[in-house]
Amino acid sequence: MPFTTQRKVRFQHCDPAGIVFYPRYFEMLNSVVEDFFAEAVGHDFNQLHVENRTGVPTAHIETDFHAPSRLGETLTFELTIRDIGRTSMALRTVALCNGEPRLTCDSTLVFIDLDSGRPLPWPDAMRRRFATEDSQGKQP
Amino acid sequence: MPFTTQRKVRFQHCDPAGIVFYPRYFEMLNSVVEDFFAEAVGHDFNQLHVENRTGVPTAHIETDFHAPSRLGETLTFELTIRDIGRTSMALRTVALCNGEPRLTCDSTLVFIDLDSGRPLPWPDAMRRRFATEDSQGKQP
Amino acid sequence: MPFTTQRKVRFQHCDPAGIVFYPRYFEMLNSVVEDFFAEAVGHDFNQLHVENRTGVPTAHIETDFHAPSRLGETLTFELTIRDIGRTSMALRTVALCNGEPRLTCDSTLVFIDLDSGRPLPWPDAMRRRFATEDSQGKQP
Amino acid sequence: MPFTTQRKVRFQHCDPAGIVFYPRYFEMLNSVVEDFFAEAVGHDFNQLHVENRTGVPTAHIETDFHAPSRLGETLTFELTIRDIGRTSMALRTVALCNGEPRLTCDSTLVFIDLDSGRPLPWPDAMRRRFATEDSQGKQP
Repeated sequence: MPFTTQRKVRFQHCDPAGIVFYPRYFEMLNSVVEDFFAEAVGHDFNQLHVENRTGVPTAHIETDFHAPSRLGETLTFELTIRDIGRTSMALRTVALCNGEPRLTCDSTLVFIDLDSGRPLPWPDAMRRRFATEDSQGKQP
Repeated sequence: MPFTTQRKVRFQHCDPAGIVFYPRYFEMLNSVVEDFFAEAVGHDFNQLHVENRTGVPTAHIETDFHAPSRLGETLTFELTIRDIGRTSMALRTVALCNGEPRLTCDSTLVFIDLDSGRPLPWPDAMRRRFATEDSQGKQP
Repeated sequence: MPFTTQRKVRFQHCDPAGIVFYPRYFEMLNSVVEDFFAEAVGHDFNQLHVENRTGVPTAHIETDFHAPSRLGETLTFELTIRDIGRTSMALRTVALCNGEPRLTCDSTLVFIDLDSGRPLPWPDAMRRRFATEDSQGKQP
Repeated sequence: MPFTTQRKVRFQHCDPAGIVFYPRYFEMLNSVVEDFFAEAVGHDFNQLHVENRTGVPTAHIETDFHAPSRLGETLTFELTIRDIGRTSMALRTVALCNGEPRLTCDSTLVFIDLDSGRPLPWPDAMRRRFATEDSQGKQP
């Protein structure tokens, strides 16, 4: 079962062609990762960044845009963990509108120390939550 | 009773000082007006812009920023109608966090024909909805 | 003589009505203030924020939008100092396209310590540069 | 010889970690494609979108982020054509700061009719300009 959340396509997301301007999708995708960490992993971005001085920058991102999205539509984002490394994590996020796929995004995040910029091993508490999410993601 | 909606302060809103970058507040404020039209006035921005080829551009906007907002906070936006003209509308929107005021924004919108750019009188159906909102806004 | 710089209206600034979405103007206006500090005041935003842990948040901003701007146009921004206080500064920025005014923005910035959030008196070195800019602004 | 242009890392691009927030890179990358069409291909985005009712949406994009970029840095973007199809084009864009690679982005654009959303064959005038750019790109 993927982590699921919704986003409304707003005026601020749309370009002169009346469809979502693709950099705005990446703002949405980042906010989905934000919700995933807060709700599924149990560490919100304020804790991660401000309190713990850690971060989860995106090292690689690859996206296929299947069909345009329009003002007023509601997109459902489904995030699943593809792989967990010692200091990184591979995610797949799909956005759909009424079941029609709009984009598929594969990304790799790295857990880092904000001050040194160096990768850090995922803390055990986070790793356990990933495992729960992951096994859910793999259930039939 | 003002029209009320909430926005979470996300990573994408925050600047290197760790607080909301003020142009992002205007994206939030615009999305509050968008919700106001969809939910209170009964005309969503897709209908207004794409179907009817009308728009509600902002002619004047004036904002006091009382205190900074931080990553992870939830802001409550309260919008009231200050005045309704033949082709325009004056709004006041206040954003609060746990009752603490963060900003007060007075704006004037104009109802226009998107193709000519000319102001249009508010349709009666919209005007009636404004009146309802307005009288609610003025109730003690 | 105001501080002058140009910005091209890009695809990312425009909304489904094909004109600049007003929150994008505030990104441009902030970047004009950024250039003003780097080029006229001699303190770039990296020095101010990262090295010195100071900031210049906007306390008040008031904007009249005179006419819409379209994709591909080049806007000329002219910034003048209206007033300098002990810890604050009042600016006026006008944007024009081929001499036609598009917006007039009056803003008040406060010089602060980023860590405490408290206002700081402008350093003498900055104050001298403001005076130079200001007297230039007032020359006939 | 790639098509080359520069972008300054501004306050609006940076996140609470003090580095460029990756969705802002995509705004920069889109503006680089915009300059490429205006300057190298001879068709600016206003002509393409507003006058001709055509567009060049991104169908696929894949980006490696090699190192973070910081407030005040100047990035050099180098764009080369990797391949030209009947209705599409594959680009590679690299961003560097003082010769240090910051990102490599491979994207595929499709030339479409904005009204139908259907792919269109590239006009001969554009195709000739691509060929010139492309052969330059391949020169030793």
